[in-house]
Amino acid sequence: PGVYMQPDGQATVTVWGPLLESVEMVGSPEMPMQVPLQKKEYGYWQGQTVLPPGQRYKFRLNGKEAFPDPASLSQPEGVHGYSEVLDRSFLWTDEGWTGIAQEELILYELHTGTFSDTHDFEGVAERLPYLKKLGITAIEIMPVNHFPGSRNWGYDGVYTYAVHGAYGGLHGLKRLVNAAHNEGIAVILDVVYNHLGPDGNYLAEYGPYFTSRYKTPWGKALNFDDAWCDGVRNYFVQNVLLWLEECRIDGLRLDAVHAMWDYSAHHIMQQISEAVQALEDATGRKKILIAEIDLNNPRYISSVSAGGYGLQAQWADEFHHALHSILTGETNGYYEDFGQMYHLEKSFRDTYVYDGGYSAHRKRMFGASAQHLPYSKFVVFSQNHDQVGNRLLGDRLSATLSPAQLQLAAAAVLLSPHIPLLFMGEEYGEKNPFLFFVAHEKEDLVEVVRKSRREEFAYFQFEGDFPDPQSEQVFLSCVLGHDCKKEPVARQMFEWYQQLISLRKTRPAFNNFERTAVNVWPVDEVERVL
Amino acid sequence: PGVYMQPDGQATVTVWGPLLESVEMVGSPEMPMQVPLQKKEYGYWQGQTVLPPGQRYKFRLNGKEAFPDPASLSQPEGVHGYSEVLDRSFLWTDEGWTGIAQEELILYELHTGTFSDTHDFEGVAERLPYLKKLGITAIEIMPVNHFPGSRNWGYDGVYTYAVHGAYGGLHGLKRLVNAAHNEGIAVILDVVYNHLGPDGNYLAEYGPYFTSRYKTPWGKALNFDDAWCDGVRNYFVQNVLLWLEECRIDGLRLDAVHAMWDYSAHHIMQQISEAVQALEDATGRKKILIAEIDLNNPRYISSVSAGGYGLQAQWADEFHHALHSILTGETNGYYEDFGQMYHLEKSFRDTYVYDGGYSAHRKRMFGASAQHLPYSKFVVFSQNHDQVGNRLLGDRLSATLSPAQLQLAAAAVLLSPHIPLLFMGEEYGEKNPFLFFVAHEKEDLVEVVRKSRREEFAYFQFEGDFPDPQSEQVFLSCVLGHDCKKEPVARQMFEWYQQLISLRKTRPAFNNFERTAVNVWPVDEVERVL
Repeated sequence: PGVYMQPDGQATVTVWGPLLESVEMVGSPEMPMQVPLQKKEYGYWQGQTVLPPGQRYKFRLNGKEAFPDPASLSQPEGVHGYSEVLDRSFLWTDEGWTGIAQEELILYELHTGTFSDTHDFEGVAERLPYLKKLGITAIEIMPVNHFPGSRNWGYDGVYTYAVHGAYGGLHGLKRLVNAAHNEGIAVILDVVYNHLGPDGNYLAEYGPYFTSRYKTPWGKALNFDDAWCDGVRNYFVQNVLLWLEECRIDGLRLDAVHAMWDYSAHHIMQQISEAVQALEDATGRKKILIAEIDLNNPRYISSVSAGGYGLQAQWADEFHHALHSILTGETNGYYEDFGQMYHLEKSFRDTYVYDGGYSAHRKRMFGASAQHLPYSKFVVFSQNHDQVGNRLLGDRLSATLSPAQLQLAAAAVLLSPHIPLLFMGEEYGEKNPFLFFVAHEKEDLVEVVRKSRREEFAYFQFEGDFPDPQSEQVFLSCVLGHDCKKEPVARQMFEWYQQLISLRKTRPAFNNFERTAVNVWPVDEVERVL
Repeated sequence: PGVYMQPDGQATVTVWGPLLESVEMVGSPEMPMQVPLQKKEYGYWQGQTVLPPGQRYKFRLNGKEAFPDPASLSQPEGVHGYSEVLDRSFLWTDEGWTGIAQEELILYELHTGTFSDTHDFEGVAERLPYLKKLGITAIEIMPVNHFPGSRNWGYDGVYTYAVHGAYGGLHGLKRLVNAAHNEGIAVILDVVYNHLGPDGNYLAEYGPYFTSRYKTPWGKALNFDDAWCDGVRNYFVQNVLLWLEECRIDGLRLDAVHAMWDYSAHHIMQQISEAVQALEDATGRKKILIAEIDLNNPRYISSVSAGGYGLQAQWADEFHHALHSILTGETNGYYEDFGQMYHLEKSFRDTYVYDGGYSAHRKRMFGASAQHLPYSKFVVFSQNHDQVGNRLLGDRLSATLSPAQLQLAAAAVLLSPHIPLLFMGEEYGEKNPFLFFVAHEKEDLVEVVRKSRREEFAYFQFEGDFPDPQSEQVFLSCVLGHDCKKEPVARQMFEWYQQLISLRKTRPAFNNFERTAVNVWPVDEVERVL
């Protein structure tokens, strides 16, 4: 779907709308044009035309109201405005790059808007040499698809195909990927395929993108298995290819795939993994799909031939919970299921802490064993955007732990037999928080967000003032304070991270992902460090 | 769960109620008693007492209202009345019986209430010699668990553990199973684990048996994966063992398992199949789990080691649809996806007609290939209770087809490489219909049923008077007219069925369930028969 324009202006326009009676492409008042589309098979509408670059357009549905393109590549006027046709050509200079082996991943999660003072991809690109010096092998970028307003974590995106202009748009993303590859750094992109944001989401005007069969905590569930779901599935599969093929991104971090409800015989995760496998086969470039998932179900990351869905890896949040609860002594919320050394040991050894046993927090037996899968299929961390940002004050571990404890946490992650992930700034003990922030344009929505955050923290039983997610100050307070790296404590921490990464890369013991290679060793390691 | 009484009257009383504050067993006014239960782990309540056989009881919850036992074995006063403690001892005489191989199944589906003029298990047992003469190897009994009123297909049951008294109760069922085994006939029982009936369902008073995560067309979805689901899962697993272990039933036909929503890492189908495997291993008696399922997802019937849920077989409704639409020319409802010889050929060869292709009726791609599984994992039929009964007039094929066409249909099923299932009466061309009937006690519920049937037939676009599901006459009109078997046409038909079954049993070609053994052969066979 979307508008595919050749360099000569020849454009193919495709829209999915199986229940519509007519679809017409219409220009903005400044760039008037109109092209009626023809109905094709399976609910698609198509037309050919010639367009100038930068054509602004919407689609008029059933001769009535016109809406932005669900597959828009650019929304220069915001989520409610006209879509923009882009020249997609790009001069790549990464020709030698063939991707990175899964086992070599050392991930660095960053939020484009708060990583640098310019709040954009260029600000990230400028610090690639710094990240190379640190030693990480891949950056993992929080969602960049177009969201309402100029500040957002990215999970309120409503244009799955459009890179937010504030970050630098599609072209800016390609430039960052190209630059990263030239530094020998892979790029993983966080994508949200389980819901769409609350403002500027016009998908339902076009077709049955959503289903009432299931619910998600963040918005209507996407229709992956109900009538007409093929168009929805294809919308996301093509989006995967936009990132991995056109933008040459090395892999995706798929947000909360447990909320991508699908009871069909061909799970959408499997469809996506098969499409990516075909791309890898065709291009010879390694691609990696990493799921965020809260099911402790190894099926998602098992091979298709073993009855799985074929994803390469998943986040292992339980490792974080086990580590965090021991380091901080916190026992509220889901931490009630953790807090003993036993949990951390189990996570080091078996990855899933709950692999069939009773979880008091969930009030049921939970999970299945993952012991038949290698450690390299699991990403572990002591902090990430959620674990920091979903605290009332967005406080990092550095706000409460001593440098020695922080070093211990870093060692636990970077010398873990699993794949390590760092959260931007932790490598030098960044003190600035990472708070939840938005810049919604609808006042009632702002109130909804404030209310839901308050309710969330009623549960967590924190005390203190309530930072306003809508405030620009809150956003600015989260921007990394790179200057502090000059301080001795920060420098020492950075060197510690460098050493651990170097150790991980050079010692064979840290490159063995077989289950048999690991025992209770991590606990001894911890004592040695202290 | 439930009351387990020893012959000496010593009884263990177990109730699941994780959110209750107190549970007390109380007798009926005629048989007063009371025993407070103690709270145990995982939400169970338990007590020991001595009871007379036939003790009537309820459970008083939180010191307030008292309700019948969710695991009641007998409801002599109906769905709202007191539960009854049963003496469960039974003198079995089937000691040589070790079950039946899945490949030898020739199933005969029957409804206990309409199979004979006595409307009960004894009426079935009396005709076991007749069924043996026919040659079938297993009877499949429509659900027998306690439903509201005295007439029901069985899918409105509200006491999963209680056999309806009108049929002969738990003891009567055991007598039928024992008698069948002594005739060399296996027994498959239809069980409903996807919803409970609309009247007399007190489960929610006891605990979170239901979830709002999912919906079913027939009532609230059961809680197989939400908080507290372990007690619900155990309720059904223990019920499986009641039938297969205590009642020595040879297998279950699991109703509509696609509505047993479970997104956990250990699917309830897998949990059940593992429990049954353990029982088989312990007793040496072969057990068979057959799913009714509308997903065309081979995972359910694949082995656990291959990433499946481990059920032995499933109904293949598409074979019916392909055959029925060709025989009758009907194209309404789901028949729009069938009607060409191609569909029947594909079902003979590949079983699933939709194994990934586009279904116009479902408006999406549907299913996955089952070609790696043997034919013996699929049950086919030209008629069954649903396919006959869910027609406005409950008319069997015999109402519209010629004897030659009926013989053709029988050959298509009985000489199919799949497992054949007959619907009671078809073996002699029974003319009486099989209509939908209930005997609800609540007038508003009767109206709901009437209305929903009318809506169903608005969709199917039949014409004619509307038979009242609540009418006793409707029920009686469905009782098999065994006398008609004496007529020449009926006798000829019965002999035809006998011959086909004999052919199936004796010719090696009809006992090869490998995919490679079959080609377009069935169509030639059909021509030969005509």
